[in-house]
Amino acid sequence: MTKLVVVRHGESTWNKENRFTGWTDVDLSEKGKEEAKKAGEILKAEGFKFDLAYTSVLKRAIRTLWYILDEMDLMWIPVIRDWRLNERHYGALQGLNKAETAAKHGEEQVKIWRRSYDIQPPALEESDERFPGHDPRYGNLTADQLPKTECLKDTVARFLPLWKNEISNDIKSGKKVLIVAHGNSLRALVKYLDNIPDDEIVGLNIPTGIPLVYELDDDLKPIKHYYLGDPEEIAKAQQAVANQGKAK
Amino acid sequence: MTKLVVVRHGESTWNKENRFTGWTDVDLSEKGKEEAKKAGEILKAEGFKFDLAYTSVLKRAIRTLWYILDEMDLMWIPVIRDWRLNERHYGALQGLNKAETAAKHGEEQVKIWRRSYDIQPPALEESDERFPGHDPRYGNLTADQLPKTECLKDTVARFLPLWKNEISNDIKSGKKVLIVAHGNSLRALVKYLDNIPDDEIVGLNIPTGIPLVYELDDDLKPIKHYYLGDPEEIAKAQQAVANQGKAK
Repeated sequence: MTKLVVVRHGESTWNKENRFTGWTDVDLSEKGKEEAKKAGEILKAEGFKFDLAYTSVLKRAIRTLWYILDEMDLMWIPVIRDWRLNERHYGALQGLNKAETAAKHGEEQVKIWRRSYDIQPPALEESDERFPGHDPRYGNLTADQLPKTECLKDTVARFLPLWKNEISNDIKSGKKVLIVAHGNSLRALVKYLDNIPDDEIVGLNIPTGIPLVYELDDDLKPIKHYYLGDPEEIAKAQQAVANQGKAK
Repeated sequence: MTKLVVVRHGESTWNKENRFTGWTDVDLSEKGKEEAKKAGEILKAEGFKFDLAYTSVLKRAIRTLWYILDEMDLMWIPVIRDWRLNERHYGALQGLNKAETAAKHGEEQVKIWRRSYDIQPPALEESDERFPGHDPRYGNLTADQLPKTECLKDTVARFLPLWKNEISNDIKSGKKVLIVAHGNSLRALVKYLDNIPDDEIVGLNIPTGIPLVYELDDDLKPIKHYYLGDPEEIAKAQQAVANQGKAK
């Protein structure tokens, strides 16, 4: 049996403003920084150790990881930053306020864009400054890999090769792995591990900054999973995420 | 022509207490954090960009790098942590106050240990808790690689393979590289690049937190080098390092 720990980044400045963030590289809010530190404190208190960490190329996840490594006195472990752990790309919705978008397109349409498995939001034009092809951090991606928009199915499709070809090999070789990523890249992982149907994964809400532990057997099949921390706080955090799509 | 930038970590809590630090994993002092941020600000203001960063497995270097990456909005670039960029291992002197050691062994003996090229300080026993074989971050090192003490010659010997087999290949492949490391691992680099004789390298003082730019030709031979920032501050910082070995 081995343990894999995943953490969704703490609250970002745009979570707070209720905007569609996607690949926009916004930072943690002050609350998000506190959440990240607390995640590190809990992991340390529970005696976790890691040999290797994976994160995205977005600073809200990287900074969350930095706080955790700092609290755990593990700043020295190797860190792999990979774009395939990025948040789902929200296409032309990126930057829009969720409540405004709901008021304009209707709460149902927003819910479809946010929570359907295979319906993409409106795509970006390549000339749009938000298109990832303009950002040097994606300079090594092929034209096929650069998203103009993504549904959750697309996020799953680009995440899984990272899991199957890299992360799972590290775990099988005996390394204790920590993954700090985003709501939808972690949904992709959870969907795969727990074999969750397409229409159910959209309702699964992973709270920010709360370590989620998967106990895996030798074939990396989940034995069980659980969050670390106070159950009441976890339930509250999950509800807060679910409410984000509602018009205000 | 390509530019390589190297930065010595900001002041640590033990620099401040005037102790032999070596591989002891002490953190930055408040002043050291300010130095690190300032290094990032200068590099950003001067328009530097990096594709890749190398640092040691010691937190005073890693945290200095984190501040620089944060200031430059480059948290997403790959970071390679390598023990061969660690500070020189100070053997049984690690943890001792430099002034006390000078009062006990004589200022000349301390100067010899600090500044001779090939005379090692007293070695650690393997049973000593300071021996790196007890630290999981060195779990992949062979018995030959684990130091019990080092003279500068030893530091040069373990650093050079990293330069020749890895960093120099990255630079030759067109990557813009930043190295954040320690006084003696950076002396090892400077000695190699500028072909400085054994008896002269010991007198070369690299100030903390001030970016040192090497302009290199296609064979990675130095064309010139210079520090970024205010010349008066740089001279002051170099003198401060030179004074550390004096008995007080």
